[in-house]
Amino acid sequence: MSIATTGPVRVVGTGLLGASVGLALRLHGVDVQLVDPSRTALALARDVGAGTPVGPASPAPVLVVVAAPPDVTAGAVVAALADHPDAVVTDVASVKGHVLAELRASGADLTRYVGSHPMAGRERSGPSAAVPDLFLGRPWVITGSGASREDAVLAVRHLAVDVGAVPVVMDADAHDAAVAAVSHVPQLVSSLVAGRLRDVDDAALALAGQGLRDVTRLAASDPALWTSILAANAGAVRDVLVALRADLDGVVGALDLAAAAAGPEDVEPGALATIARAIADGGTGVARIPGKHGGAHRQYAVVTVLVPDRPGELARLLGDVGDVGVNLEDLLLEHAAGRPVGMASISVLPARAEHLETELTARGWRLVR
Amino acid sequence: MSIATTGPVRVVGTGLLGASVGLALRLHGVDVQLVDPSRTALALARDVGAGTPVGPASPAPVLVVVAAPPDVTAGAVVAALADHPDAVVTDVASVKGHVLAELRASGADLTRYVGSHPMAGRERSGPSAAVPDLFLGRPWVITGSGASREDAVLAVRHLAVDVGAVPVVMDADAHDAAVAAVSHVPQLVSSLVAGRLRDVDDAALALAGQGLRDVTRLAASDPALWTSILAANAGAVRDVLVALRADLDGVVGALDLAAAAAGPEDVEPGALATIARAIADGGTGVARIPGKHGGAHRQYAVVTVLVPDRPGELARLLGDVGDVGVNLEDLLLEHAAGRPVGMASISVLPARAEHLETELTARGWRLVR
Repeated sequence: MSIATTGPVRVVGTGLLGASVGLALRLHGVDVQLVDPSRTALALARDVGAGTPVGPASPAPVLVVVAAPPDVTAGAVVAALADHPDAVVTDVASVKGHVLAELRASGADLTRYVGSHPMAGRERSGPSAAVPDLFLGRPWVITGSGASREDAVLAVRHLAVDVGAVPVVMDADAHDAAVAAVSHVPQLVSSLVAGRLRDVDDAALALAGQGLRDVTRLAASDPALWTSILAANAGAVRDVLVALRADLDGVVGALDLAAAAAGPEDVEPGALATIARAIADGGTGVARIPGKHGGAHRQYAVVTVLVPDRPGELARLLGDVGDVGVNLEDLLLEHAAGRPVGMASISVLPARAEHLETELTARGWRLVR
Repeated sequence: MSIATTGPVRVVGTGLLGASVGLALRLHGVDVQLVDPSRTALALARDVGAGTPVGPASPAPVLVVVAAPPDVTAGAVVAALADHPDAVVTDVASVKGHVLAELRASGADLTRYVGSHPMAGRERSGPSAAVPDLFLGRPWVITGSGASREDAVLAVRHLAVDVGAVPVVMDADAHDAAVAAVSHVPQLVSSLVAGRLRDVDDAALALAGQGLRDVTRLAASDPALWTSILAANAGAVRDVLVALRADLDGVVGALDLAAAAAGPEDVEPGALATIARAIADGGTGVARIPGKHGGAHRQYAVVTVLVPDRPGELARLLGDVGDVGVNLEDLLLEHAAGRPVGMASISVLPARAEHLETELTARGWRLVR
C-alpha cells in the first residue's frame, strides 16, 4: 500500500505511542529517527524496529512527532520548532487546549504546529509493548493551532491515515470538551461507583451482575495517569460533572420524597417523573453512540445461549452460528455466579434471529430469553 | 435429577418470572397451578407449558409463589396466606423491605411467609418469553420475615435450588442495601452519564470508545420499570447516592483548583491527591467484585487479536485458541470506529499467554498490545 508520508520522521519520546508510530512507518519503509532522554527506552525502541537513534549525520526531519509525557509536551514542541525550522511538528497529548495555551504563551511560531490526539493505547506501556497496529481503525484527532499552515495540517493527516487511523479534524477546545464527555467523565464516574463498593460486604457483592461489571470495568485504571489527564482537562471535565451533579441532585431529591411516602400514589407529584426522566434521558443519550463500524446505531436482535465452561464450547457455538449462515454482528459473554456456565449474547440482524434460534436449538444448544 | 419441591405449587402472576418458575418445575414433573388476572396471560402461560390454570377441583398448594408486579405484591401475599392456611408463601419482588413493611402493617401472620428475589430476567417480558433456564446459575436471594418458620425458609430454599439458582439467605434490609449498591445505583449512574451525551455533537461522539460503551450499556433500560424499583428502594439508593455525591463534590472542587492553576506544580496541595484517591479507590472497589464462577477475582492475562469482520473469522480464532490447548477464560469484543475490523481481547491464565501469542502469530493472526 503506498503512503503519503515521505520522511524522515523524527519521533521524540519512544514510549508506547511514539514507538508504535515508528513501527507503523517502518513497515512502509519510511526513515524514522528516534529520540528519548532515557537511553534504555531508546535502545529498546531501536531493538523492536521502531527506527534509528538520532546521530550527528542524521538528515533533517520533515515531520517531528513529539510523543513525550503531557506535562513536558509543550516544551518539547517549542524545542522541535526551533531545532527544525522546515519541519512540521505534532504531538500526541490527550488534552489539546492545555498544550496549545502553553505554546501560545511561549511565543513560538505555530504555523508549523498541528496538534494530534491518537485515541489508541493499551494497558501495557513502554517501547516493548509497541506494535505497528496500535492505531488501526482508531480515531486520530487533528487540532490546528489556529495559525497552522494548510500543508502542515495535511502532513499530519497523512501521518494518521498512513498508520491506519481515522483522521478527525477538530478545534482544540471542541476536542477537549468532547473527550471530557465521552472519555474522562465516564472514567471518573466509573471509579466513583466502584469506590462505593469498598463499603459493601462480600455477601452483597455475590449479587453482582453483568451490569455492575460493565459500569465499573474502567475503574481498574492507573491513578497517576488519570490524575494528570483530568487535571490537564480540568475545566471541560468540571463542566460536564457539574451538569451531571445537577441531574443527580434532582434524583436524590425525588428519592427523598419517595422514601417518605407510604405508597406510589402518595409520592409528591413530579418526583416519580424526575426519576423516570433521568432513565429516559439516558436511553436517548446511549442511542446516540455510533454503532459497529461507526455508522448509525443499528437495532440488532440478541440471541442468548448457555455455554458450558468446557474447552472449545464457545468456538463450537460460533462455528455453528457460521454454519447456519448467520453473521455475528456482536458478542457479549456473561458469567453465572457460582456455576460453570456462561451466557453468550449474540447480536444478529433481526430478520435472522428466528432462524438462528431454531437452528441452534436443533443442534442441542439451550437458549435463554 | 431428583428435587426437593413436591408440589402442588401455585404461581400467582404468570409473567416472565412466574411462568419461568412454572416451566422449571414442570420439567421435574411438579404439579404447577397458575393464576393471573389477565385471561390472556394465563392462557399463554398454560400454552407454553408452565402449568394448569386453577379450577374448582385444584388441590391445595403447599407452596405459593406470588409473582405479581411489586406494587401489588404485598396484597397478593396477604391474600395467599389467608386462602391457603397450610401453604408457605413467597414472592419475587426485587426490593424486600418495602414489601415486608406493608405485610407487617397488614397484621398478617408472617410465620409462613419468606421473601425471595430471584436475580434473573431478560429484556423481553411476559409468559411467551418464559424459559425453564431463566434462573440457572443466578443468585436467588431468600429473606425471612423475622418470624418465618424454619421449614418455610427451607421450602423456599429448595425451590431456588430446584430451578437451578444459587440460594443466598439475607436480611431484607441488608438485601435492599446490597442491591442499591450493586444494581440500582450503577443503573442510575449509567443513565446519568448517558444522559449527558444528549448535549454532545456527532463529531464528538465519533470519538467514543469501548469505555464509554461499557459505562453506558445499562442506560438502554425501561424508565417505568426502573422508576418503580428505585422508588421502592428509595431510602437505600439515596444513601449510596449521597455518599457518591460527596466523593463527586471533592473531585469537582479539586478540578476547580486544577483549572485555575498554571501548571501541575501550582495546583493547591491536596487537590491532585483528591483526584488520584478517587481513581485509586475505584480500583480497590472493582477488585472486590467476584470473578468468573463467583470465586476470588483471578488475575488473567489478556491477549488481544485483530479480527477481520468476515463471516467465520471469530469462530476460526476461537477454534485456533482451543486447538493450541489454551482455555478461554473470558472474551471481550471491541469494534474499531469506521473500519471493518474488531479486536478480540481473550483472557487466559497468565502462564499460557506467551504460548498463545506465539501460536496465534504463527497462524497468521495479528496481535495488538
